[in-house]
Amino acid sequence: MLLGQVGDYLSQERKIVIIGCGAGGGTAAQFARKTDRKASITIIEKDKNPQYSKCGLPYAISGIIPNFDNLIEFSEDWFKRAGIDLLLETKVEKIDVSKKVVIANKGDNVIEKTFDSLIIATGAKPLIPPIENIQDQGKLINGVFVLRTIDDAKDISSSIIKGKKVTIIGAGLIGLELAESLYKKEMKVTVVEALPSILAYTVDQDLSKIILDEISKKVEIFTNHIATKIENDSDKVTKVFVEDKRNGTEKEIQTDLLVIATGLKPETTLAKDTGCKLSKKEYIIVNNNCETSVKDVYAIGDCTEFKDFITKKSIPIGLGSIAVRQGISAGTNAAGGNYTLLDGFLQTCTSELFNMEIAAVGSSDENLVTGKFNGLSLPHYFPGGKPITIKVFANKDGKILGAQAIGDNAAQRINTIAAAILGNLDIETFRRLETAYAPPIAPTLDAITLACDIISAKLRKRQK
Amino acid sequence: MLLGQVGDYLSQERKIVIIGCGAGGGTAAQFARKTDRKASITIIEKDKNPQYSKCGLPYAISGIIPNFDNLIEFSEDWFKRAGIDLLLETKVEKIDVSKKVVIANKGDNVIEKTFDSLIIATGAKPLIPPIENIQDQGKLINGVFVLRTIDDAKDISSSIIKGKKVTIIGAGLIGLELAESLYKKEMKVTVVEALPSILAYTVDQDLSKIILDEISKKVEIFTNHIATKIENDSDKVTKVFVEDKRNGTEKEIQTDLLVIATGLKPETTLAKDTGCKLSKKEYIIVNNNCETSVKDVYAIGDCTEFKDFITKKSIPIGLGSIAVRQGISAGTNAAGGNYTLLDGFLQTCTSELFNMEIAAVGSSDENLVTGKFNGLSLPHYFPGGKPITIKVFANKDGKILGAQAIGDNAAQRINTIAAAILGNLDIETFRRLETAYAPPIAPTLDAITLACDIISAKLRKRQK
Repeated sequence: MLLGQVGDYLSQERKIVIIGCGAGGGTAAQFARKTDRKASITIIEKDKNPQYSKCGLPYAISGIIPNFDNLIEFSEDWFKRAGIDLLLETKVEKIDVSKKVVIANKGDNVIEKTFDSLIIATGAKPLIPPIENIQDQGKLINGVFVLRTIDDAKDISSSIIKGKKVTIIGAGLIGLELAESLYKKEMKVTVVEALPSILAYTVDQDLSKIILDEISKKVEIFTNHIATKIENDSDKVTKVFVEDKRNGTEKEIQTDLLVIATGLKPETTLAKDTGCKLSKKEYIIVNNNCETSVKDVYAIGDCTEFKDFITKKSIPIGLGSIAVRQGISAGTNAAGGNYTLLDGFLQTCTSELFNMEIAAVGSSDENLVTGKFNGLSLPHYFPGGKPITIKVFANKDGKILGAQAIGDNAAQRINTIAAAILGNLDIETFRRLETAYAPPIAPTLDAITLACDIISAKLRKRQK
Repeated sequence: MLLGQVGDYLSQERKIVIIGCGAGGGTAAQFARKTDRKASITIIEKDKNPQYSKCGLPYAISGIIPNFDNLIEFSEDWFKRAGIDLLLETKVEKIDVSKKVVIANKGDNVIEKTFDSLIIATGAKPLIPPIENIQDQGKLINGVFVLRTIDDAKDISSSIIKGKKVTIIGAGLIGLELAESLYKKEMKVTVVEALPSILAYTVDQDLSKIILDEISKKVEIFTNHIATKIENDSDKVTKVFVEDKRNGTEKEIQTDLLVIATGLKPETTLAKDTGCKLSKKEYIIVNNNCETSVKDVYAIGDCTEFKDFITKKSIPIGLGSIAVRQGISAGTNAAGGNYTLLDGFLQTCTSELFNMEIAAVGSSDENLVTGKFNGLSLPHYFPGGKPITIKVFANKDGKILGAQAIGDNAAQRINTIAAAILGNLDIETFRRLETAYAPPIAPTLDAITLACDIISAKLRKRQK
């Protein structure tokens, strides 16, 4: 049986099909609707939930967000009211570009949707590292989890037992956000990281060390360790073996639960079959208008690579804030509007871990000149100032290219640096910026200014 | 008797004299020392305190800062250790530019200080409006105060009686900061403002209204009213008469204390006598290097006017953050270094009033295009989001020229806009900026982005 075709043939309006209803896909639908009030817009989503916040999952596990349903940002009803046809639990089997038709299955029904513009927002799935015994017949063994979807989060949530042990493989943002959630649920948490430092893709080793020292008070962390093997009892994980990469020493960690948080793998099989150009790592390559190499086919979000603002090298996206901006662009363009993105991504990112706010933007290339300042958020004479550490990166000509921060309002301070990068500001100009001052709010010279003063002094010394 | 001359004659080093040890003067001394380790640096200050925070005074009155001495940012001892000669309770009588000598009195002693460079940082004093009976023989009558110095603040502080009435004339930042302090001390506070809105020099009427509505829950505020006359009993204020400017209606307000916070008048008699060019309003006019019209004489802080970054019109300084930046420039330049300020001031400013953070930057000219957004500091699904209202101003070409904000992290958000103004960014570029996103910290699209989206939509509509 073919559903959905009758409406297609009757109408003359623009037809937009979006595959995937994550942050990118949902936003694209919204902006397509804003751009063309008459367009036929269809989202095809393989899971059962409409657009929800993946980034919110750790906080629903910890209970800060009291209910998983709260994570749903736009309900089925919302899409209905916006005149967007949302097909849930519907899996796209094939994209026929020559006929401009998407063929999908919903249960036993085959659905064909013709399109003028297609937006691929298929996202990514967790990367499962080669740990012995982690899978049985292609499925993770009992007690082993990933954290990507609401269902994953509910599975973890229902397995939490106060006082029991959980091991998380991967000390990136998601691994550590989850570590905090499970610590708050009074589990005994161990984190295993293969790299020499935690949050290695977010901050430099010196800042990483500050965070490690703080987190280590609550959670056991092994850096430089890789998980090699799992032991189970009655098909449930009981132990994980880890190996110290520096000397080969093996250690076994008793554990009741194991969560894999070692990164993502793009979902790009459909895009590949459609002829979209992929990167070496199999991400879809897109331009500043979110166009793929195939005419009328756009791609956005975690399944794509796009250039870095500073280096112009192609990099995987992997941030909700970027997926949303790509969604705005692709949705607008697919509906006949015009929204070109900036010439690359700054990768502004933030997280709160164990009461520390952490944020970063831009480049932290080791050849750059750095200025690091540790200070307080308030003038010294005003009570309640909170620590802030900020590290700014500039090239030898003094152009600001990046920053990392930990502490009070790290994210907002990083936003200011992000604006400075976008505005092509150099250290000498930016350090003269009047930042807002009032005793209960900020000192006359903010930490961002003082970090830049250090770079200025280094550069002047070099000139001598 | 002549003090201080012997050292002058013996040394060949550069001699820098600074008049005034406020934020500007103290900072200038510090940066002069950084620039020239051997220079002879003298600060002459008429009051008895070394550099302290004037902006902190309301918080010492409220008790948040537990002790007035805490406000002292750099002690006499600090200046001594830095090799800076700080002469307190010393009043400059005359500057002889031809001989490059400053003549001052300390008690009965006459001090002569020769200089190679002179920095005038004489500040400003409260403007006393023409209210009948406010002064007796040139002095404010009992119960009437101003708030400019530590002594003023101590006087107010020692007059506070819980449950008694205080009237504050002027609803600018200082008037309202003080209103909050006295409210916290459980006084009954009335504020009288001649203009139609409070904080008229900081925010537009629409934002002012939000603040007024909040403050009015705690403090009685009369806008459009001017104080005309004071009544006293046994030489102590008992009543103030105010007149509604709109219809001439008179009202009498019973009051135990009265504080004047209607602005400042520059202290520029010395500068004028020295031949420094003054503005119509009698502020010293300075250039981007803090030089006055007289060779080797610099001026900084509240006694100066400097151009606005956007309009390039000359405006009084009046902000501690600017005084400090001028101090850096004048101190460095006077000591043979080179520190040119930005080409005008952005006037970034902030305050916290009754738990509302308020901030502003740049221009709010009524001919500009505005985008105002009311939102939350966090995604809707995350508990604890705080209100934020932000209004951005751009010209018809979309160039960002100003912003005002109330609420969560208003100051930091305004700093980001300040960086955008400095970087000459337009709305279309800035609204594409990736701001830091994480559920516990900020939504995917921050209020600053959404305010700019509104401007973008208005400008696109105009183009059609």
